Amino acid sequence: MAEVAATGAGGEAMAAVAAGEGSLGPVPSWRLTGFSGMKGLEETAQEAGLPVRAELSPPFPTLGIGMDSCVIPLRHGGLSLVQTTDFFYPLVEDPYMMGRIACANVLSDLYAMGVTECDNMLMLLSVSQSMPEEEREKITPLMIKGFRDAAEEGGTAVTGGQTVVNPWIIIGGVATVVCQPNEFILPDSAVVGDVLVLTKPLGTQVAVNAHQWLDNPERWNKIKMVVSREEVELGYQEAMFNMATLNRIAAGLMHTFNAHAATDITGFGILGHSQNLAKQQRNEVSFVIHNLPIIAKMAAISKASGRFGLLQGTSAETSGGLLICLPREQAARFCSEIKSSKYGEGHQAWIVGIVEKGNRTARIIDKPRVIEVLPRGTTATPLAPENSSASSEPSL
Amino acid sequence: MAEVAATGAGGEAMAAVAAGEGSLGPVPSWRLTGFSGMKGLEETAQEAGLPVRAELSPPFPTLGIGMDSCVIPLRHGGLSLVQTTDFFYPLVEDPYMMGRIACANVLSDLYAMGVTECDNMLMLLSVSQSMPEEEREKITPLMIKGFRDAAEEGGTAVTGGQTVVNPWIIIGGVATVVCQPNEFILPDSAVVGDVLVLTKPLGTQVAVNAHQWLDNPERWNKIKMVVSREEVELGYQEAMFNMATLNRIAAGLMHTFNAHAATDITGFGILGHSQNLAKQQRNEVSFVIHNLPIIAKMAAISKASGRFGLLQGTSAETSGGLLICLPREQAARFCSEIKSSKYGEGHQAWIVGIVEKGNRTARIIDKPRVIEVLPRGTTATPLAPENSSASSEPSL
Repeated sequence: MAEVAATGAGGEAMAAVAAGEGSLGPVPSWRLTGFSGMKGLEETAQEAGLPVRAELSPPFPTLGIGMDSCVIPLRHGGLSLVQTTDFFYPLVEDPYMMGRIACANVLSDLYAMGVTECDNMLMLLSVSQSMPEEEREKITPLMIKGFRDAAEEGGTAVTGGQTVVNPWIIIGGVATVVCQPNEFILPDSAVVGDVLVLTKPLGTQVAVNAHQWLDNPERWNKIKMVVSREEVELGYQEAMFNMATLNRIAAGLMHTFNAHAATDITGFGILGHSQNLAKQQRNEVSFVIHNLPIIAKMAAISKASGRFGLLQGTSAETSGGLLICLPREQAARFCSEIKSSKYGEGHQAWIVGIVEKGNRTARIIDKPRVIEVLPRGTTATPLAPENSSASSEPSL
Repeated sequence: MAEVAATGAGGEAMAAVAAGEGSLGPVPSWRLTGFSGMKGLEETAQEAGLPVRAELSPPFPTLGIGMDSCVIPLRHGGLSLVQTTDFFYPLVEDPYMMGRIACANVLSDLYAMGVTECDNMLMLLSVSQSMPEEEREKITPLMIKGFRDAAEEGGTAVTGGQTVVNPWIIIGGVATVVCQPNEFILPDSAVVGDVLVLTKPLGTQVAVNAHQWLDNPERWNKIKMVVSREEVELGYQEAMFNMATLNRIAAGLMHTFNAHAATDITGFGILGHSQNLAKQQRNEVSFVIHNLPIIAKMAAISKASGRFGLLQGTSAETSGGLLICLPREQAARFCSEIKSSKYGEGHQAWIVGIVEKGNRTARIIDKPRVIEVLPRGTTATPLAPENSSASSEPSL
């Protein structure tokens, strides 16, 4: 009960705060509750037409972003709680696949720590108040089914969550596991001479945008010289498949091949996440990226559109691959093993860079080799841009 | 590695689904990504003006809502993972207090299980894209600080989370604890003769709405005969204080006084949550509620406005009290103990009902006694409506 008594003191502090700040707000007529259509839980309201600045949100001002999951030592016998959450808005049109992607994206933060198990998942969902009810009743169960199916593939289950009504659709979740120390790999042990491996091709952001531009003549005109509608459709399908693929096999192989550190590639692009990972290293190392495996045609679209920065490594990815530091002698074996048929179709990995002595930074070389990754089922070799190669066995 | 291999099979199943459902959508021009302003992670867009139906969202179609937290047996020595998530929109104007309320509301689901510790919290946040950046930079840190301070009062810390941009502000979180079996109380053991205790007064929904009606002449005109502006302000402050108060002390006392079951009162009101709790009982019992402790004046506002159903027990609460089944001989001691100064100011509890033999339902008697709970600091006794009492020692 000592803890409970201590809480009482906190309660008094709060009372003082409440008394002092009770009517806080920039101006008297300003209302925080104005920033929701759900006035007082009960009112009806009108959402004003507003310009949307579509930025990736900044991380928490005061929370570290060093690791993909938080790791909390528990009160019980050497165990740790490893936990992560993520949610976002629809970026593909298929509700079932959107659910799968959201789940794969959440689990990926555990997999980046080399964790292969998940004890529990919660689902976070908002349905759109602008969607007709009939449509909502079709779409929502499909998203939920996609999410749950991916959770099941990850050997876990969704046992709870929260659903709200919102102007936009939101889908995401929470993944939690309680681990013994040998079940996770802290992302801080890269050594000079290590090799960097990436387990999914880049270009998901370009692919989903290009797919939306099929219906936007102004945008389409800027890229139609470098890509056909069929290639955009293929690239989009490939991106969707990759985003929905779990990084679980890669997480398991991190243990087999003695990985020294890893992260997953999401909103900051391969360069941003490489930099984050480099910062956390105990040794004085830097990461240098030589090769960029990219979904076929996406490099050309990125260049033609003048957006994204895909070749600069700054294009956001969703549910991207793991970037793993491996001992040099293990990296090729990792890339070969993950393609083994025993893990099913569709798993790939490429050596993309090296670990040098340095001051915990990361960079991409001036003219990285672009590896054009062909959509599955494709047999024709696409036209390779200048510094590209359609090979999956790059040199460094 | 067996599990990893099994995943491979799941991957193939997914590939088949992706191939079959890749372009799924009700009509060819329909786009799921249309239900977000964040087109393709990168576009700008215009959010159309849309009517907002402000309803409490339904629970997950296929997930149980029986317990306030999910309880997952772990692979490690008899331990269980107890976990919950909740998020919602601003309902008070003070950003700091809004953060505290959001945190108290999440933790409350653990406390309802008699859990007093929390190993980790994640924060879920969206900032409004309609809020000027300058204002956003003032408001957001205050909400985060409120959330973190309440977490600290709960003996835990926020170690991660997710922030996005959204038309509306969202705040919420995830609370997780790993427990030994004696640390939580499953909410299924009520017996005939037990007494029901409630640890916060009802009326938060009425209070926050009435406070908004101060600026809405049409609405205000309907209630101004029964309440003054000052009383609305006092009731609002009292509601805010109560919503921001942790149910942690009550959770600790559940163990001291041998509680048989508990839940917390939120969106379904006291009647809805009593019914949910009754359904889960192993014994053939029913809950009968005789007394309704209500923030002073809120019963009158509820009646005058013709909304809410506060006296019918259906008015939604946010971060409400725990409703606890206790052995009859322990209930009065619980109510007396929680007011002890050793737990700090502001904790209260009332005996509100009894457990009878029955078919796992709950009801409120025809003319429940309304206990008008005076805002702290108030000395005057408000005019009591007909079947009301300002006493805190109700009879049953």
